[in-house]
Amino acid sequence: MRDFSQDHRALSINTATVRKSRGQDLPLTDILDACARHGIPAVSPWRDQVAAVGLKTISAQVKSLGLKLSGYCRGGMFTATDDAGLQLARDDNRRAVDEACELGAPCLVLVVGALPGALAGKAAHKDIAHARQQVSDGIAELLEYAKANGMPLAIEPLHPMYAADRACINTMEQALDVCDALDPGKTGALGVAVDVYHVWWDPKLQAQIERAGHSRLLAFHVCDWLTPTTDLLNDRGMMGDGVIDIPRIRGWVETQGFNGFSEVEIFSTGNWWKRDHDEVLKTCIERHRSVV
Amino acid sequence: MRDFSQDHRALSINTATVRKSRGQDLPLTDILDACARHGIPAVSPWRDQVAAVGLKTISAQVKSLGLKLSGYCRGGMFTATDDAGLQLARDDNRRAVDEACELGAPCLVLVVGALPGALAGKAAHKDIAHARQQVSDGIAELLEYAKANGMPLAIEPLHPMYAADRACINTMEQALDVCDALDPGKTGALGVAVDVYHVWWDPKLQAQIERAGHSRLLAFHVCDWLTPTTDLLNDRGMMGDGVIDIPRIRGWVETQGFNGFSEVEIFSTGNWWKRDHDEVLKTCIERHRSVV
Repeated sequence: MRDFSQDHRALSINTATVRKSRGQDLPLTDILDACARHGIPAVSPWRDQVAAVGLKTISAQVKSLGLKLSGYCRGGMFTATDDAGLQLARDDNRRAVDEACELGAPCLVLVVGALPGALAGKAAHKDIAHARQQVSDGIAELLEYAKANGMPLAIEPLHPMYAADRACINTMEQALDVCDALDPGKTGALGVAVDVYHVWWDPKLQAQIERAGHSRLLAFHVCDWLTPTTDLLNDRGMMGDGVIDIPRIRGWVETQGFNGFSEVEIFSTGNWWKRDHDEVLKTCIERHRSVV
Repeated sequence: MRDFSQDHRALSINTATVRKSRGQDLPLTDILDACARHGIPAVSPWRDQVAAVGLKTISAQVKSLGLKLSGYCRGGMFTATDDAGLQLARDDNRRAVDEACELGAPCLVLVVGALPGALAGKAAHKDIAHARQQVSDGIAELLEYAKANGMPLAIEPLHPMYAADRACINTMEQALDVCDALDPGKTGALGVAVDVYHVWWDPKLQAQIERAGHSRLLAFHVCDWLTPTTDLLNDRGMMGDGVIDIPRIRGWVETQGFNGFSEVEIFSTGNWWKRDHDEVLKTCIERHRSVV
């Protein structure tokens, strides 16, 4: 297992972590500058943050700052109630692949979607098995386009509390079943993003990380699970402030040969988004070295 | 599959559902009277509600009203940081078995516990595998006492969002692994409580219900998953108001021969606990007949 205690060369910041500074939206340009200033070598930007500035501008800034990417957030949301909706998702996902290529991302992270309409508070139906089939079909189709463009797809299993509205792939086992069905040769074109927040509870986690192996482990995300957790989406904890045994999980991932970045992804309306982003980044560095 | 549309003879009310009426605590005596008044044939009382009145009083009232029980809530919380804590849990669980016997419950429901201290906001450690071992050991020991007293134990897998603080058994598969280890003969002494709120998301749910079979399916609980869900504990929905395909899951359970009560268990600070309990019970009856 790699020693993180001496430096932060393996640290990446998911840009949602400092989406806000002192409660105010922070432009991605400022986020990238701040990461570079703190000697953070990598980032994983969100599409909406890129779009707010402009893809070409961000791409140029990333290159000029010498930043690497640990992923691009995000494609997915494959489910819909009709063909027109599926077509919109297909087109949007292809654009996401194009953007990931332009930015030099090592993978496009997929949050696959769930019951159509549920995220807006009104699910169009309750057939999660059907949603899962649409997701599998959507990934299969996008995979062809992504392979042609050399962009690996990383399915991110989301915590089961998001099964209704954000992602109906909710365990590593389920994600790997999709990988095995669509990429039986383990070509590296399709794999998983392991976010400890989503999977830490899973009694089969170690076994499924071993099953994934090096070729399927495309990204590793960290934050922490707080007790109590006061919001289902935006109350993630800073590493060390919660109950997740992060080093144990990182050990399992690295035993498989994972050698990529440890990406900090924290959504925190009530705490970290209220603080100054420089303080947040300093804390990420300190915790990366001490508890990840 | 049974037809619920014509009557509510298969309905049970978990007494937490009407723990409060118009925001005020409602004594269990009043809850039992109200259930009987509405022709609801069964209840599943909580230990704290029983204790607040007195076991003998409640036992006599249950019998005089002719109410059946669908379960008794709850034993469990097997984890601790030291032997003294484990002994306290052991003693308390034996008392829970005794109470369940006195009340004539068909099973004692187990919410097994998780990381010690986490429920109070400060976990003593992060070793969920160790907690799971303590749980398995605790169930094994309690099982002997429960068998000697003729009281079946129903492990309730809780949603993974409770893995840190309430129960580290989080899937049907995991619960059934424990059942198979401790009761390989499927004697009926150990099984599961299937609460749709906790398991609806699980892609392996149907398969695991089939694996459980008649001898392991000891209780069936219903409510609904709301989108959005605004609180991790106390924002459960009334059946029909959320995204769970309850009839589908009930069909799977009944295919295995389950013929017990459909128990409504709703924790709802913001909605149902604010209403008058008679309105809540009427709604439970109506939804039981129309959407369960």
